Amino acid sequence: MLKVPDHQVAGHKGGHGQPGPLIDDSGRFYKPLQDDDRGAIEAAFYTSFSSNTRVPDHIRRFFPVFHGTQLIEASDGSGQRPHLVLEDVVSGRSHPSVMDVKIGSRTWYPEASEDYIQRCFEKDRKSSSLCLGFRISGLQLYGSEESELWKPERKLVQNLSADGVRVVLKNFVSSNSPIDPNLNPDCAFASSVYGGSSGILAQLLELKSWFEDQTIYHLNSCSVLMVYEKKKVLKGGSSDAEVKLIDFAHVTEGNGIIDHNFVGGLCSLIKFISEILTSPDECTTKVCLQNSDNKNEILTSSNECTTKVCL
Amino acid sequence: MLKVPDHQVAGHKGGHGQPGPLIDDSGRFYKPLQDDDRGAIEAAFYTSFSSNTRVPDHIRRFFPVFHGTQLIEASDGSGQRPHLVLEDVVSGRSHPSVMDVKIGSRTWYPEASEDYIQRCFEKDRKSSSLCLGFRISGLQLYGSEESELWKPERKLVQNLSADGVRVVLKNFVSSNSPIDPNLNPDCAFASSVYGGSSGILAQLLELKSWFEDQTIYHLNSCSVLMVYEKKKVLKGGSSDAEVKLIDFAHVTEGNGIIDHNFVGGLCSLIKFISEILTSPDECTTKVCLQNSDNKNEILTSSNECTTKVCL
Repeated sequence: MLKVPDHQVAGHKGGHGQPGPLIDDSGRFYKPLQDDDRGAIEAAFYTSFSSNTRVPDHIRRFFPVFHGTQLIEASDGSGQRPHLVLEDVVSGRSHPSVMDVKIGSRTWYPEASEDYIQRCFEKDRKSSSLCLGFRISGLQLYGSEESELWKPERKLVQNLSADGVRVVLKNFVSSNSPIDPNLNPDCAFASSVYGGSSGILAQLLELKSWFEDQTIYHLNSCSVLMVYEKKKVLKGGSSDAEVKLIDFAHVTEGNGIIDHNFVGGLCSLIKFISEILTSPDECTTKVCLQNSDNKNEILTSSNECTTKVCL
Repeated sequence: MLKVPDHQVAGHKGGHGQPGPLIDDSGRFYKPLQDDDRGAIEAAFYTSFSSNTRVPDHIRRFFPVFHGTQLIEASDGSGQRPHLVLEDVVSGRSHPSVMDVKIGSRTWYPEASEDYIQRCFEKDRKSSSLCLGFRISGLQLYGSEESELWKPERKLVQNLSADGVRVVLKNFVSSNSPIDPNLNPDCAFASSVYGGSSGILAQLLELKSWFEDQTIYHLNSCSVLMVYEKKKVLKGGSSDAEVKLIDFAHVTEGNGIIDHNFVGGLCSLIKFISEILTSPDECTTKVCLQNSDNKNEILTSSNECTTKVCL
């Protein structure tokens, strides 16, 4: 009954001697508990969060529902292993467009080991995190044809410049192909996905208000997942745009201080998305989003309005 | 006509072979241009800012007015030297209470030298900056008697815990003495200094709105200065509470990205001040703010409501 999920865009996958997540057909997502502290921290977070009466109901919907932990057969055949049982946030969606954005200019935290701090510090500096306050960890995007799926390499999207991130955030809500270098993203779905009273921007703003006030948790290295259904929009329906927070393996206690690192990064993401809504055509960015032979080729001209990004 | 200012609580002072700032009696503040990049960067910032039409008028009042640069005799007698000529932000105040808060969990920035980054990185981790998103760089506080002035050592206020910062932010708006260990800060002036439509909180919120949107400047290592007149409040008058941004020697271009490091830190400071306004008596904090022999003695009990802070 359990199978490997189709729509994972970031995070630990199965293979190479480690088990990956599994899903069932009743809408549950089974995430193997990591052996080290991370597994214990994430389980403790879900347990605390799901029973914490200080978390308002309208905020709870941004977090996957937690159904406890369960011993199940690991995806790599290594035997029984404890898994977090969570809501599968893309369950019921046949062709979801998904983007995973890791929030915060800093993914480390004072309580971490010196070795972990140094590794994160270097990665934050090399990736978009330090400059933008967030980095795109991965995404997938369906085209108008069912066969068409764009899923750029994670490594490439993590290190984008501001201009590159702008292009990808536009591609995410465009009807034309991200892999045709002669087409600029048309942002055809921007208003129905990012905009509106139930769109992604409104949801991010709701989260922001809470994060400006809550001092319970610091969600270090946590991601905002943005999901919508392109097919439904193409048929004139609602985009079913949804924001979820995921990955809590590095949560620490807030101790009466707001998560200012998360707030800053979230505000930066909000600004990028707002700009696409208010002036989608501001830059006639030249885009080439094919995988090239040189995987690291990301070209940005000095003129910020003629950016060429190759993924 | 020029003299050394009485009310400087942070930043470079004169002495030890370096010139310090000077003031005149017409409300101008003369800041010696630092020899290295910092002087050039700060002068460039003031020049750019003062003529930038994208800065709204209601935001301009939070920055000292800039009157150009001028060659004057340095305070240390080392001869003529270029100075920034700025508005003296405490001019006309006889007994100002002043607090300098350096905003941001990170005071370094990607463009800085590796050596500078490492030094800041260590200082941010050791001081309150990393945990709180800001650090108190210095303060002075008049008592009800003219002779009474509390000006704790900068080193001690920079490294305070969250509880210590809470105590000092309460002391700043209290009528009773911060150096009597048997008195809890009464927060008698909280509503007239922090609160109200023209109080410090309202001013910080106005700044926050702008910083969530502006992508022109990144104000690395810049401070919020909070000033008010205790004597006037004691006589039943207005507190004349004022917020100013100062210190722009590390400003970089925003390049279309908001200053998420500043936004996060500002939101954290706003939360601390809001809490004092909404529940000034929440913790009956035990405070002992006398200079002790052991200058580093900052005691915080595990019970967060019986904090003992010694400066």
